[in-house]
Amino acid sequence: MKKVGVAILGLGVVGAGTYGILTDKKQYFANAQKLDVTVEAVLETRKERALSLGVPASILCENISEIVSDPAVDIVVECIGGEEPALSFLKSALKNGKTCVTSNKEVFSKHWHELQEIAQKNDSDIYFEASCMGGVPVVRVLCEAMQANHIQKIAGVINGTTNYVLTKMEEGFSFADALLGAQEKGYAEANPKADVEGYDSTYKLCILAGLAFHTKITVDQISRKGITEIDQKDVAAAKAMGYSMKLLAVAKRTAKGIEARVEPALVKKEHPVAAVSDCFNALSIVGDSVGEVVLTGRGAGAAPTGSAIVSDVIFAAKKGAHSYYEFFAEGKTDKISAEVTAGHYFRFATSAPDAVLAKIVPALSKCGATVNNVWREDGELCVITAEATLSAVNKALAKLNLKDCTLVSHYCVEAVGE
Amino acid sequence: MKKVGVAILGLGVVGAGTYGILTDKKQYFANAQKLDVTVEAVLETRKERALSLGVPASILCENISEIVSDPAVDIVVECIGGEEPALSFLKSALKNGKTCVTSNKEVFSKHWHELQEIAQKNDSDIYFEASCMGGVPVVRVLCEAMQANHIQKIAGVINGTTNYVLTKMEEGFSFADALLGAQEKGYAEANPKADVEGYDSTYKLCILAGLAFHTKITVDQISRKGITEIDQKDVAAAKAMGYSMKLLAVAKRTAKGIEARVEPALVKKEHPVAAVSDCFNALSIVGDSVGEVVLTGRGAGAAPTGSAIVSDVIFAAKKGAHSYYEFFAEGKTDKISAEVTAGHYFRFATSAPDAVLAKIVPALSKCGATVNNVWREDGELCVITAEATLSAVNKALAKLNLKDCTLVSHYCVEAVGE
Repeated sequence: MKKVGVAILGLGVVGAGTYGILTDKKQYFANAQKLDVTVEAVLETRKERALSLGVPASILCENISEIVSDPAVDIVVECIGGEEPALSFLKSALKNGKTCVTSNKEVFSKHWHELQEIAQKNDSDIYFEASCMGGVPVVRVLCEAMQANHIQKIAGVINGTTNYVLTKMEEGFSFADALLGAQEKGYAEANPKADVEGYDSTYKLCILAGLAFHTKITVDQISRKGITEIDQKDVAAAKAMGYSMKLLAVAKRTAKGIEARVEPALVKKEHPVAAVSDCFNALSIVGDSVGEVVLTGRGAGAAPTGSAIVSDVIFAAKKGAHSYYEFFAEGKTDKISAEVTAGHYFRFATSAPDAVLAKIVPALSKCGATVNNVWREDGELCVITAEATLSAVNKALAKLNLKDCTLVSHYCVEAVGE
Repeated sequence: MKKVGVAILGLGVVGAGTYGILTDKKQYFANAQKLDVTVEAVLETRKERALSLGVPASILCENISEIVSDPAVDIVVECIGGEEPALSFLKSALKNGKTCVTSNKEVFSKHWHELQEIAQKNDSDIYFEASCMGGVPVVRVLCEAMQANHIQKIAGVINGTTNYVLTKMEEGFSFADALLGAQEKGYAEANPKADVEGYDSTYKLCILAGLAFHTKITVDQISRKGITEIDQKDVAAAKAMGYSMKLLAVAKRTAKGIEARVEPALVKKEHPVAAVSDCFNALSIVGDSVGEVVLTGRGAGAAPTGSAIVSDVIFAAKKGAHSYYEFFAEGKTDKISAEVTAGHYFRFATSAPDAVLAKIVPALSKCGATVNNVWREDGELCVITAEATLSAVNKALAKLNLKDCTLVSHYCVEAVGE
């Protein structure tokens, strides 16, 4: 039976989950996969935590060099998170010919190409299924099940914390109360910035869009807006108009290039991406041959993310020539467009809704943004339009010089799956 | 660039779709995958059809032996369907060392192990993503993204034709009218038996359950009931009680072994598997680590199924040592249980509903089948119970010797994803 030695860097939630699966299912992997998988080393300075998780003291390390020089270690699993020291550790492991598996979306989205180059030079490899959407196998599906397709669009809810908060806001809670609830449940960190300001989704979208479009997209090419400024009023108006407000990650091909953004947007209630609630994730992938495929599941947590890591470990241990390198084989760099092409939701505060409607409907219609949906309440007017570029819509509205009317909020309305 | 020669057997809907993708995207595969993919041969006796699809006469063959002896052919794609001559052709190709890709659920479910043995002996390989759920990559996900998990249950809608019919029945159409509509739309064959009697779903479930549980399950171990005898009344009652009637394919681990069946069953409306309408497919996979993952997409059609075939072609062309053989590495054969463990829906015709309810509620409760939901109309009484074995429930009902009461129908109620 093939022997596979694994080292785990970091025993946080995901590292501990991975350690548990690898040790609990050792016999199962031997039976079902014909692999003798052994955790040979664990890097963790919190010795007590490691021992309380059942890690034998004999395999505990405090220094990365012990691990990368250990011939018994074939695969290094990085679950530290953040840029440093994770990046240095991964580089060091790859340079020593170790196969790496990471759940670290930040380090991978920012340093993918650098890490890949080092891996290629050293005949090693790096896997990252766990970096996106926890246990939902989006990386595998994009890489190995969609090759027949030109991907047109990916769109989804890829951060569980913000989705939990927005689900609660739809039930009537304020942002502050909903966030507090998420923190009490352990879904949100004490410092929730990475989630609620959209950084986490942006890192993941950077990776997923790179795979979907076979092109280099950097984190700073993705426009990012979090959920901290969402008014409960807009969530309620969206709901009344048949939509759900989601922190949506979208990347799509347009005539001007690839648009990629993370921001609150409205999704039709009937779509599975709108239906995903609490801390679940969902991604819609549209290919020119396959049409729409939707994947949903748990986007975070020890066992789901551990499941993704271990699937990479098994896959890596068994693989021959297959790798992800071909995704950038041509060094291709598509044009990234900063334009925003989508449907649009506007909320106006106005004392003259009829007059405003009479002006905006024909003006918006002229630039393709037909008004499909209107909702009024207490001096407020909400409209939802067909798809058009935001620049054209803004220009049309600016020209009108509307009186007795203030634009309170704007969100994109995304036709997910179309 | 690596050259890959492909032969396509059969130019039906799927074969034609595959030919189209392979030829239209030749340059794309060269750029994105570094593969020079060429269709070297097409086996099709309907010469005019082939020419009308743009197949050059020079690559048209009428004899399988020309193809399996052609050194330019690396991969044989079988899109003939049915058992013969597909089985003989696949065997012949494998014996000649060709890699095979098939969309043929019948031949693969019935002869998987035989084909695999021949492949192993001849250092060839066989891929079958397209045999299950068209463009939805369930085979890849079960094989390569779920290795960390003991799969507990798979449940889903894996036949589009019957789902279209049931969607229409939920809208109020009779079975006969709904089927006629499906035939007019081209979703159902002139002879719809394979679909409406559940054979198609059974073949697919046989393959999916084999992968999910790493065990041999034969087609005849799967209990099968089609949709031809469904009364519109039951569809309407289910709807009124918050459920959708689906032709559900289920395989799950129980204490007594693996239960596997295809039959009409009730699924809670909120679940994505219930929400899938028309000819879309959805599968829920529950693993002990990952929890529930749901995949939805187009389960049939030229382009979606062609997409799955081409993804196998690309995957096969690039793979090294990886293969599906390990799924049966141990020659493991789990016990297959004929028991039916599920929630239950009963419809009774009765002139004394109160008296019947008063008797059945405590009797069913005793065997664990707590009555959770009751619905009455015009001398009819419907109940939905908690999960229990069907044998226990039947025994409890038989003992009661109910008067003025006829059991009209029974369906399972499946807690998909739990």
